[in-house]
Amino acid sequence: MKLTKEQEQDIKDQQSLENKTKRVTSSALEKILYTALPVLDHGFVRVIDYMGDDTSIVQSARVSYGKGTKKVSTDEGLIKYLMRHWHSTPFEMCEIKYHIKLPIFIARQWIRHRTANVNEYSARYSILDKEFYIPSKDQLSAQSKSNRQGRGALITGEQADEVLKILKDDATRTYDNYEKMLNERFDGTIIDENKDGLARELARMNLTLNSYTQWYWKTDLLNLLNFLFLRADTHAQYEIRVYAEAMLETVKKWVPITHAAFLDYRVGAVHVSAKGKKVIQQMAKGKQVTYESSGLSKREWNELMTSFEFTEKII
Amino acid sequence: MKLTKEQEQDIKDQQSLENKTKRVTSSALEKILYTALPVLDHGFVRVIDYMGDDTSIVQSARVSYGKGTKKVSTDEGLIKYLMRHWHSTPFEMCEIKYHIKLPIFIARQWIRHRTANVNEYSARYSILDKEFYIPSKDQLSAQSKSNRQGRGALITGEQADEVLKILKDDATRTYDNYEKMLNERFDGTIIDENKDGLARELARMNLTLNSYTQWYWKTDLLNLLNFLFLRADTHAQYEIRVYAEAMLETVKKWVPITHAAFLDYRVGAVHVSAKGKKVIQQMAKGKQVTYESSGLSKREWNELMTSFEFTEKII
Amino acid sequence: MKLTKEQEQDIKDQQSLENKTKRVTSSALEKILYTALPVLDHGFVRVIDYMGDDTSIVQSARVSYGKGTKKVSTDEGLIKYLMRHWHSTPFEMCEIKYHIKLPIFIARQWIRHRTANVNEYSARYSILDKEFYIPSKDQLSAQSKSNRQGRGALITGEQADEVLKILKDDATRTYDNYEKMLNERFDGTIIDENKDGLARELARMNLTLNSYTQWYWKTDLLNLLNFLFLRADTHAQYEIRVYAEAMLETVKKWVPITHAAFLDYRVGAVHVSAKGKKVIQQMAKGKQVTYESSGLSKREWNELMTSFEFTEKII
Amino acid sequence: MKLTKEQEQDIKDQQSLENKTKRVTSSALEKILYTALPVLDHGFVRVIDYMGDDTSIVQSARVSYGKGTKKVSTDEGLIKYLMRHWHSTPFEMCEIKYHIKLPIFIARQWIRHRTANVNEYSARYSILDKEFYIPSKDQLSAQSKSNRQGRGALITGEQADEVLKILKDDATRTYDNYEKMLNERFDGTIIDENKDGLARELARMNLTLNSYTQWYWKTDLLNLLNFLFLRADTHAQYEIRVYAEAMLETVKKWVPITHAAFLDYRVGAVHVSAKGKKVIQQMAKGKQVTYESSGLSKREWNELMTSFEFTEKII
Repeated sequence: MKLTKEQEQDIKDQQSLENKTKRVTSSALEKILYTALPVLDHGFVRVIDYMGDDTSIVQSARVSYGKGTKKVSTDEGLIKYLMRHWHSTPFEMCEIKYHIKLPIFIARQWIRHRTANVNEYSARYSILDKEFYIPSKDQLSAQSKSNRQGRGALITGEQADEVLKILKDDATRTYDNYEKMLNERFDGTIIDENKDGLARELARMNLTLNSYTQWYWKTDLLNLLNFLFLRADTHAQYEIRVYAEAMLETVKKWVPITHAAFLDYRVGAVHVSAKGKKVIQQMAKGKQVTYESSGLSKREWNELMTSFEFTEKII
Repeated sequence: MKLTKEQEQDIKDQQSLENKTKRVTSSALEKILYTALPVLDHGFVRVIDYMGDDTSIVQSARVSYGKGTKKVSTDEGLIKYLMRHWHSTPFEMCEIKYHIKLPIFIARQWIRHRTANVNEYSARYSILDKEFYIPSKDQLSAQSKSNRQGRGALITGEQADEVLKILKDDATRTYDNYEKMLNERFDGTIIDENKDGLARELARMNLTLNSYTQWYWKTDLLNLLNFLFLRADTHAQYEIRVYAEAMLETVKKWVPITHAAFLDYRVGAVHVSAKGKKVIQQMAKGKQVTYESSGLSKREWNELMTSFEFTEKII
Repeated sequence: MKLTKEQEQDIKDQQSLENKTKRVTSSALEKILYTALPVLDHGFVRVIDYMGDDTSIVQSARVSYGKGTKKVSTDEGLIKYLMRHWHSTPFEMCEIKYHIKLPIFIARQWIRHRTANVNEYSARYSILDKEFYIPSKDQLSAQSKSNRQGRGALITGEQADEVLKILKDDATRTYDNYEKMLNERFDGTIIDENKDGLARELARMNLTLNSYTQWYWKTDLLNLLNFLFLRADTHAQYEIRVYAEAMLETVKKWVPITHAAFLDYRVGAVHVSAKGKKVIQQMAKGKQVTYESSGLSKREWNELMTSFEFTEKII
Repeated sequence: MKLTKEQEQDIKDQQSLENKTKRVTSSALEKILYTALPVLDHGFVRVIDYMGDDTSIVQSARVSYGKGTKKVSTDEGLIKYLMRHWHSTPFEMCEIKYHIKLPIFIARQWIRHRTANVNEYSARYSILDKEFYIPSKDQLSAQSKSNRQGRGALITGEQADEVLKILKDDATRTYDNYEKMLNERFDGTIIDENKDGLARELARMNLTLNSYTQWYWKTDLLNLLNFLFLRADTHAQYEIRVYAEAMLETVKKWVPITHAAFLDYRVGAVHVSAKGKKVIQQMAKGKQVTYESSGLSKREWNELMTSFEFTEKII
């Protein structure tokens, strides 16, 4: 990750702010506020604003349930209870805003989460930076044989070199041609004073999907956790997972109690179907259960065994 | 408006917070943070948290439009431009959270705005306060003759007294019976130790719609302005309009530039239909235009004349 | 449930429609289209329009996954897979519209699900029907001792009679006074020709929360299932659960494969936390696990045991 | 636009459906149901399902306003009234589903409208078609001098040829390299049996932003009109405007009364600010108004004059 001098100055200016407020603050999050956390080769995640903390969740739950919540002795107990029982609205009372730099093909996956507010850098208005994502060699995987949306073994040797060369050459060439059509370099230099450049809204179509874009992305804590549940998961594409992991660290600083409850009741949890429940009931009673007698499909059986790490029984 | 001692202490505690933050702050809003602004006879509006200010809107617009926004010389010019051209996403980058106490029939109208986050006091869990909205005499209007959802002339004299007596008596009696069914007073006193009380989730159905409830209500600035546009309008029911007006004052303190642009481009603006535009074009050219030649319906003609205060032409 | 003659005629008219369409149709749902399914004493649920069926879910998944979905041999297999793996967007491709009559205190609970489209009968415009919900004797439960939002033992005998008398008397009296303030009966008769009535938007505040209202409620299948998951659950209040159960039957007719998958993977499923998973792993290996060694709170332990019906171990 | 044989067969199969339904149908829309309406060089728009028509809007408004709506004599009068007064929920009661093929850079603009349901073809699962958008010569515009997000004069001659050559060559080369990295042609042919292909989720990043994707896009009528208001507008980028225009034609067939009201009260309407209103008031009274005395900025003055086509006064 390389910041422009302008960006570095911006961050310094923001970090030098020292305001007084009567609002709730999260001191651990304040420490990394505005800091660009590097992700991938040119990307980053920065928390640039937030509202509320763990106590805001507790406070709003107490408004809802009135005196009813006094029995739960601690904030931690209450947050865990809310998470366990799928109470959603108290977690919506916290809000966070990120500045994120990411490859376009990842941005396209990300934007499908529709509940956030977004301001993206517009290539209709301005010229995109000359930066593309090139995977590192340890991420250059072949298509999975078993999972149509997954990765298999690493690609190595000459084939790996060839892939990397293609990605670099094509991104560079299409970007150079983007500048040529615009008749303008990324830094604003006009190439040929006697020519008009193609409209930016057209020229951008020549860029490859690994070009970097950036946006402000603002969401409440509930929807952030839903996003992280799906995107910090091992089934998520590596290139979005690393963003989710960086953000999960910011959540830990911001709302540590909620973060712990999220790991216990969501990330590390297992969801068992009605049929799967019968299998577990039998096993817990010491009875022999087999795939054949389970009523599950092979795929369901294997998923159930895997989720409890009963690896020996997978067929 | 009467706060309980507990609430007053809560507000004092919150107002005594003095935290340091690197976040953007709105000093005018900080001054009234947590303060309960009275509305109606027992209601209030309190800002209890916020995120961002006018500069946050500018900052996110500059992310979107990159170098393109540098031409607009000032923050004010940019915010006015964004408002005028219906740009929405930059205004979503600010967030505010209110604590509101309001009559249930107004809460039902309010909740139709679905884009906010809400935590409402739950009468399944807890006993509602013994407080009901009773209109003041200057709000006791008859049904409008011309507008099916509006108010007409004031009701006065004996009839007014009778209405107020009904409202007070019925609210009091149904509340007393609520306590009787619960076998518990609002302060937690058990009425008859030998009896069980009816489930709270059932007993509440006996309350009248002017009973007060309360909630936390959190929304972004764009959706707040949409809400205020509809609810601070003269066509809105008085009992919700007074809340909207109190909130509009908090917006003025929070984001003064946006507030001014909102008044100019939304609240005070006129929307003219394609047919209405032709009428205005004629009038501006000094031509005589009549309802008959306008192609407008009577209702449209009158609405157009009224909107430009051309009152003499109304038929 | 009592329909007015006007409503009965409306339903007959709608049911006599026989249109041709190239759209997908659900023949089982067509059979009950427009029919008012009775709920509670005066309420109902009617399906009045719908879009798509099980095949629409399959079709949209195949658009997303292209050739990738051909491996899944059947529609049923694909829908089960999508449900099991929390794929959401294909289920959003079906839409349904209900006409529902329900008590206001239930409408207030219902409306917290914000993702649906709603048109509610407006008591600003029109006079509400003279109908209130009065629970049947087998639903007259005391407040639960253990669960602050639940019901306990039945209230019987004189106390039950007293409760029912209160509910009926208060609803009747407040409604009569509503008419008196309006100076108009529910059927439009003016009471005193020499008086103006109070504005409808004011008079309605005198009604009790068990008054019936009605609305059109339109949602996609994904959000409908989320609603039904929470509201057809045993923890939901009885008075909303009966609506959810009636709607679940309409879902069974509309999208039978999705309905079956929903029962298996959602309604009958168990969600096990990371700590709970360790307990289950031990039990399945025949090891003795106790609450003390589990690392769970008492409440968590009991919830886990209950969810697998290991009742003997609850403490 | 070129459909595959498979797609053509699909469309024929769908169009041969002849089902009976009690639902409301739109006969004009039925006629073009499933038909692929060509847009740009390879794109299309197809209506593949819908729910409701003009009468559904009327029906839901009558539920809301009860007897109050009977005064409005006709369906047309009521729909016009609803549109004029910004009533939104009745228009949400109609739903439509499109199948759309479009270039990725347009899909990225489109998806910012977050209120629709979307299923997009996934390039993680499957290989994208070898199709890219190449502008026709009459759309090859230079960057506008005055408007940072607009187009200026046409680019012609050698420069135009060069641009088109770049776009074609780069798209072709990056696609060929996409296949090479995948070790698989778009039709499924394996290139080198001794090699593994790069994971699809990685290889796709080499494609240019003018590659075509496709999706199912489902929305209610209110949000569709909001989308069309912005995207069928002359300020919208040409490449999305042509989609909006094709969709506007389907709206005309589906809900002709609403379509007419939309043209009158939205598309052809003028929005005048509070300050602008004073200018119009003066002009209508035959007074001389100048920019200097207007209190408007130059930009506002010009926008106001343009919106009423008072072109002579623009400065």
